[in-house]
Amino acid sequence: MSSDSHSDLKLVTAAMLVIGDEILSGRTQDKNVSFVATALGEIGIQLREVRIIPDVEQEIVDAINHFRKKYDYVFTSGGIGPTHDDITADSVAAAFGVGIDHHPEAMEILTRHYETSGIEFNDARKRMARIPDGADLIENPVSKAPGFRLENVFVMAGVPSILQAMMAGVLPLLSGGARMISRTIGVPLAEGKVAQDLGLLQDKYPEVSIGSYPYFRQGEVGTNLVLRSIHGDKLDAAFSDLRVILDGLGVTGTETT
Amino acid sequence: MSSDSHSDLKLVTAAMLVIGDEILSGRTQDKNVSFVATALGEIGIQLREVRIIPDVEQEIVDAINHFRKKYDYVFTSGGIGPTHDDITADSVAAAFGVGIDHHPEAMEILTRHYETSGIEFNDARKRMARIPDGADLIENPVSKAPGFRLENVFVMAGVPSILQAMMAGVLPLLSGGARMISRTIGVPLAEGKVAQDLGLLQDKYPEVSIGSYPYFRQGEVGTNLVLRSIHGDKLDAAFSDLRVILDGLGVTGTETT
Repeated sequence: MSSDSHSDLKLVTAAMLVIGDEILSGRTQDKNVSFVATALGEIGIQLREVRIIPDVEQEIVDAINHFRKKYDYVFTSGGIGPTHDDITADSVAAAFGVGIDHHPEAMEILTRHYETSGIEFNDARKRMARIPDGADLIENPVSKAPGFRLENVFVMAGVPSILQAMMAGVLPLLSGGARMISRTIGVPLAEGKVAQDLGLLQDKYPEVSIGSYPYFRQGEVGTNLVLRSIHGDKLDAAFSDLRVILDGLGVTGTETT
Repeated sequence: MSSDSHSDLKLVTAAMLVIGDEILSGRTQDKNVSFVATALGEIGIQLREVRIIPDVEQEIVDAINHFRKKYDYVFTSGGIGPTHDDITADSVAAAFGVGIDHHPEAMEILTRHYETSGIEFNDARKRMARIPDGADLIENPVSKAPGFRLENVFVMAGVPSILQAMMAGVLPLLSGGARMISRTIGVPLAEGKVAQDLGLLQDKYPEVSIGSYPYFRQGEVGTNLVLRSIHGDKLDAAFSDLRVILDGLGVTGTETT
């Protein structure tokens, strides 16, 4: 099974593009990044970069074209509704240099949806059926207007409940690679106390990423130490060493998941 | 006072660089973007782009150099602690092509802090005094280790309470421009119902940015309509027109702040 175990350790990367003035104005707190990051992580895809940009076509085109060449997968959120500021589909078409038109299947889905609901399927709503040529639809179980996939770019809604429902349909289409495993220990120490030992530990285990995240809660200082690796054996070995280091500093710490 | 009112309408822009594997892994929900966006907005600086990138020097260098040329101000969060993964200061020095060393004033602040606390000022903690040549310190009232400013780049901590305290010291150093004013109205309508009228309204008021944000709460569909402009008179005129449009659709909506 050497070929299997080899493919298990392939790194698969992703980037996310958050499109929306409302995040940049501070009006809305983004919730999609952590959701997508976690969902991808669970199937062995590492989110490596996020950009949050305004509803400006050239910005979207540039980011899409940068991301789709650099990373295995690209996910976008926002800008696929019926209003004038929903320009993501047109921008993605422009990035790929393909046409865009009302997609027959999307038109069918929306026609049926609005007929059933007794709501007028007006021109603005028909905009939501505009899909770049060659793209496949992503199902929207919440409000029907679909997202789409063009090559390695997955275009989804910005409303968190819709994005989450779309991701459920997207995840089975992705080929995950090596899963990043992590172990976390919280210690009642300022990170400066353990920093030097952590640096040496990092040098000893180059295949384990060692992160240190201080916190200040009700006047109490502490640090979460997070070890991450695609190599379970190396992760466990580094974690054992870390336990010994903490023992030497007189603390045990609490492992959390 | 024509020169004053002219300068009042100058657009001042900013970008933010969030440095940290813990956001990209989904482990930590970022809270700094919305805080910085709101704080900047209040003094007339528009946050135009955010990137979230890992603790990788070349990525930080590239983003800093792209941002500092494109935007008036750049703000970074994360990576200025005492551990091996805290590489922001070195990366900013590399981006500017300047040296980096233990800064006398930073050393003094930290020496005094650790003496008072009875905590060892070890080599790892001395790393936090490493500041690029030519930079000014940003005070850290929470845990003392300073941030710094180099030209238009402001480097701050990633821990939200520290970043917020640092921003309090940074804001008076910034020259804000035209303040973006916004008016928001929530309506119990799907956005597709009002989309066409909004598009026409947007065409009529090119200096007002009209955003439409649908929500789905407990099965109820609604839309927040957000009008933003640096021109108060145009904003109010567009908002009056919007009221008329909503009247025509048989809803009044609720203005929120």
